[in-house]
Amino acid sequence: MTHVFRYERLATDGPARLGRVHTAHGIVDTPAFMPVGTAATVKAQRPEEVRATGAQIILGNTYHLMLRPTAERVAKLGGLRNFMNWRGPILTDSGGFQVMSLAKLRKMTEEGVTFQSHIDGTKHHLTPERSIEIQHLLDATITMAFDECTPYPASHEQAAESMRLSMRWAERSRKAFVARPGYGQFGIVQGSVYEDLRRESVEALAGMDYEGYAVGGLAVGEGQELMFQTLDFTCPMMPEDKPRYLMGVGKPADIVGAVARGIDMFDCVLPTRSGRTAQAFTRRGTVNLRNARHAEDPRPLDADCACAACRQYSRAYLHHLIRCDEILGLMLLTGHNLQYYQDLMRSLRGAIGDGRLGDFIARFEEDQARGDIAPLED
Amino acid sequence: MTHVFRYERLATDGPARLGRVHTAHGIVDTPAFMPVGTAATVKAQRPEEVRATGAQIILGNTYHLMLRPTAERVAKLGGLRNFMNWRGPILTDSGGFQVMSLAKLRKMTEEGVTFQSHIDGTKHHLTPERSIEIQHLLDATITMAFDECTPYPASHEQAAESMRLSMRWAERSRKAFVARPGYGQFGIVQGSVYEDLRRESVEALAGMDYEGYAVGGLAVGEGQELMFQTLDFTCPMMPEDKPRYLMGVGKPADIVGAVARGIDMFDCVLPTRSGRTAQAFTRRGTVNLRNARHAEDPRPLDADCACAACRQYSRAYLHHLIRCDEILGLMLLTGHNLQYYQDLMRSLRGAIGDGRLGDFIARFEEDQARGDIAPLED
Ligand SMILES: [Zn+2]
Ligand SMILES: [Zn+2]
Repeated sequence: MTHVFRYERLATDGPARLGRVHTAHGIVDTPAFMPVGTAATVKAQRPEEVRATGAQIILGNTYHLMLRPTAERVAKLGGLRNFMNWRGPILTDSGGFQVMSLAKLRKMTEEGVTFQSHIDGTKHHLTPERSIEIQHLLDATITMAFDECTPYPASHEQAAESMRLSMRWAERSRKAFVARPGYGQFGIVQGSVYEDLRRESVEALAGMDYEGYAVGGLAVGEGQELMFQTLDFTCPMMPEDKPRYLMGVGKPADIVGAVARGIDMFDCVLPTRSGRTAQAFTRRGTVNLRNARHAEDPRPLDADCACAACRQYSRAYLHHLIRCDEILGLMLLTGHNLQYYQDLMRSLRGAIGDGRLGDFIARFEEDQARGDIAPLED
Repeated sequence: MTHVFRYERLATDGPARLGRVHTAHGIVDTPAFMPVGTAATVKAQRPEEVRATGAQIILGNTYHLMLRPTAERVAKLGGLRNFMNWRGPILTDSGGFQVMSLAKLRKMTEEGVTFQSHIDGTKHHLTPERSIEIQHLLDATITMAFDECTPYPASHEQAAESMRLSMRWAERSRKAFVARPGYGQFGIVQGSVYEDLRRESVEALAGMDYEGYAVGGLAVGEGQELMFQTLDFTCPMMPEDKPRYLMGVGKPADIVGAVARGIDMFDCVLPTRSGRTAQAFTRRGTVNLRNARHAEDPRPLDADCACAACRQYSRAYLHHLIRCDEILGLMLLTGHNLQYYQDLMRSLRGAIGDGRLGDFIARFEEDQARGDIAPLED
């Protein structure tokens, strides 16, 4: 355990970076994928199972936790890490994105956002100061600045206005943050797909000297090509000695492309949400286990995966569980998907360390393009 | 692993028996509780978690498995134990009870039962011969005879007629059973609450020389007092050198009373089903974790329980998971309830071995009557 929050860059391969984030609650090897633990649980997984996949840090959601069980209650119960028994660092989002996507009757002003809970309709107010206070009560290892995630598409004028509001909120967020040894706060770069706005945002945030920087406002419908183009000009603007986090991304190919462009951290609900909809990520692309072709297939889901679902069960059994809506089906599939994501990150780190990221990506794309193994002959 | 299916009686304490059932797939220490794995899964648990609670044998349901994924498919995939990765013996029921409680448009004749699936309305036929064939295809370690579970209440005439049909079916079931080393088949004693009918049933079955005997037709609404009375006269009639299984029982107090009366094996959905409805069994009675009194309680569910839910989490956290309908909540509660049941069986075995079952029961009843720990003061 360190008492200084810092990013250590160990190697590079083009823009891609191999590194480590040192925190009060442990080290995070980067590039890293953070499983999403929305309501103080990574859905359908015990925390020790999440850890066993190789995950070193998870994400918690301020919006959900402020509603249930409330930040004050989590604080009373020893903070989010103790409450949910996660023995490692936690990053919490600021709540802003989810207020906009989940809450009802939102009203945004310079001061902040007023909204109604999607659960019981109760009225709540979220400001930069309150968001940072909530994250403090949750005892988040990494606190995110409160921002507005600019919707896509946005005109240059809309994007500029939204980004500048986020930068004023970033000032207030930074001021509200209580520095503690080994804890950090990340600022969020906005500016939609406009290079000049991204530059303005990076420069504004760099002056506030955050412990890390996130790229926000991507993976909101702009598509992979535009996302990669935006990263192509945004990453080189960002401080080299701080971790870079691409929020809410993404599919395996999105992650691989973003790592190649210099991103260090990711979070996404895909592996956990897909685990609940019979969708599995494998070295040969996605597989839908609900499909009848798996009903008598004795082979593992992914022969190269070491997770329990792949080592102990057949595709036929997983298919059966899913058809019967059995909870074990989504436990096993979620576990597999999390394992797949962590294996991918480990491979990416290895490839950057060896200076052969290009080869790795070529093989990754080839394998994904091959598609699933052929059905067995009867 | 033994190659002979046999019951070994190690000690007695009054009518209560400490023993072991030797099977092709492992030993079962008795009195034993069998968690229910209806659709080839003990709901919300990995099989290794079930095993870790101390469970040595589980129950599978013929009715569910014949519909999905079908017995023929399970056979093709290596039998139920391999299919679901359970490394131990499995007992399967005969399907008769669940056809009567779940299926639609049932029609019973001397030959067997015709019914429609509750899932898709498809028509199926179940006879003693087909039930035994299905259980063979599932590769059940213990096969149950096909019977009619006499409903309660039943007049003496109705009960006699129903029991005699079951005895004719028992003859056909026994004939259809393919003996294999270390595998066994249990006959089922019927006769409702009538002593003369239970005697007639036991004598009919004893002539068929089963490897074990079950008491059927109890826990169907007659209440604990009448169930215990029936066991009081039925158990002494049953062969001493064979295991005795009380089907579908029950609450902890039912099990304790039945063990004291000479029963060796139990199965019940209560620990798994209650785990999905926020009901926890503890040394101080049942606790409903949905209750708001637990919302800020940092104490474990049951301080004397070694399960993950009790060792790693507070009541406040379990309450939070349940309020949010999080899958981890029912994973943890189911795990706790299964652990509670296995701990109870282990304590009962210890008490019989030490010849102090009476003391154990007195303390058990006292603890249960104390009720849950008092809420914390604010
Ligand atoms: Zn896997
Ligand atoms: Zn417990």
